[in-house]
Amino acid sequence: MTGRDGGADLAPIGNAPVVVLVRPQLADNIGACARAMANGGLFHLRLVAPRDGWPQEKAWRTASGADRILEAVTLHATVAEAVGDLHHVFATCPRPRHIVKPVLTARGAAAELREICGRGLRAGLLFGPERAGLDNDDMAQADALVRYPLNPAFMSLNLAQAVMVLAYEWWTAADDTPPRSLMTNETKVATKAELENLLSHLTAELDACGFLRNLPKRPGMVRNIRHLFERGEVTEQELRTLHGVVTELSHGRGTAGRGGRGEQ
Amino acid sequence: MTGRDGGADLAPIGNAPVVVLVRPQLADNIGACARAMANGGLFHLRLVAPRDGWPQEKAWRTASGADRILEAVTLHATVAEAVGDLHHVFATCPRPRHIVKPVLTARGAAAELREICGRGLRAGLLFGPERAGLDNDDMAQADALVRYPLNPAFMSLNLAQAVMVLAYEWWTAADDTPPRSLMTNETKVATKAELENLLSHLTAELDACGFLRNLPKRPGMVRNIRHLFERGEVTEQELRTLHGVVTELSHGRGTAGRGGRGEQ
Repeated sequence: MTGRDGGADLAPIGNAPVVVLVRPQLADNIGACARAMANGGLFHLRLVAPRDGWPQEKAWRTASGADRILEAVTLHATVAEAVGDLHHVFATCPRPRHIVKPVLTARGAAAELREICGRGLRAGLLFGPERAGLDNDDMAQADALVRYPLNPAFMSLNLAQAVMVLAYEWWTAADDTPPRSLMTNETKVATKAELENLLSHLTAELDACGFLRNLPKRPGMVRNIRHLFERGEVTEQELRTLHGVVTELSHGRGTAGRGGRGEQ
Repeated sequence: MTGRDGGADLAPIGNAPVVVLVRPQLADNIGACARAMANGGLFHLRLVAPRDGWPQEKAWRTASGADRILEAVTLHATVAEAVGDLHHVFATCPRPRHIVKPVLTARGAAAELREICGRGLRAGLLFGPERAGLDNDDMAQADALVRYPLNPAFMSLNLAQAVMVLAYEWWTAADDTPPRSLMTNETKVATKAELENLLSHLTAELDACGFLRNLPKRPGMVRNIRHLFERGEVTEQELRTLHGVVTELSHGRGTAGRGGRGEQ
């Protein structure tokens, strides 16, 4: 599930939320977060007091080509400074306690962020340090908390994966790909008449070889075969192949190319 | 965005899809995939010809407690062997070419998997090797391909993050958390009468201190204040705090506790 995008085309896409990593510990994770942001069309990354300083070479290794995001990183001493120019701030938080605050699902957050950013306002997403997550003062700076629906028996979410889920939801919130479609590439879905043509060919050959000799059962057998072929969208290319299959099989074994039934 | 779940309670949840990693290269990624599976409530992991053999200690380190998933891993020589007992197989594939196959979004795949597994059928999800992804023969074994909607300028998706997105969608497909809700913890949302009580208190004190002395403007000013307080859900605890704030402020500066307006 990879590709080889150099990331050379990476650039901000419209008015998208800023990602704020609060006191991140591992540079590998910062790089992996940048990669996840690139996947989901986010660009602006702010670091609040990264434990090991910044820049860190390791981050470029795990960013896997999302270098432009790392090059544009800004450093901040406090959360207040990092969010000062934003209009709305959402904070990810798996298990908030003793707090009165709106809680959004990741999908709910993405929908609201699309709405907020669509109005030209600036929004940010806070992610806490790997080990402990955001503290109470961090969360008090947010309009709302984001809690992903996930398996309550195993909530330990890697930082970059937390970013991935929100970046994915951000992208998906503006995507209108149908949930299912048939990819046909060079060929096209066959029409009903083209499919009928194959079924006639097949039925004629099955009559000829005796497969349909039980006349009372014949209509049901033909209908069963039709049901199978009608179930999926058959393409023109596949019909050509199937015509060939029927023709060659009807010539019989061991007589390839002769054009007559074999003497099995 | 972390927690410290030991993973001791990890167990299969209902009839969920099997994850099949095809020729995975890095043990770290196998462990990270197990962690992502645990996050999304998946359990059964099958490995087809892992490059460096199996088991690998590194996987346990990145699994971050999802040990039970790793302990239950099964090893397979071929994709055909790994999917032999399954009824439906979906293959993740960022950029399928020259193929005629249904293509699902991650969300579409999750919905169909819920439907398939709900009928008691066994399903599997194929993920390709880190560098190259699934090859054409792997994909030919699948009913459908899964292509996540993601930024076309940067499709390079880490293997564990690819698993994360589908595991997250699998979990979310059966989740009914409202997109937004107010978390109030120990306290409750105040009633309109309780809020009215605060507004009366505040208005009385503002009348007393002269803030509302412009009588033609008074109704509009009171209404603006009301609009602000009605906009969010205020809790009983917050109302108590606000009553205290109004009372103390109305006593004036430097006269804390005296009960009268200060002589500023």
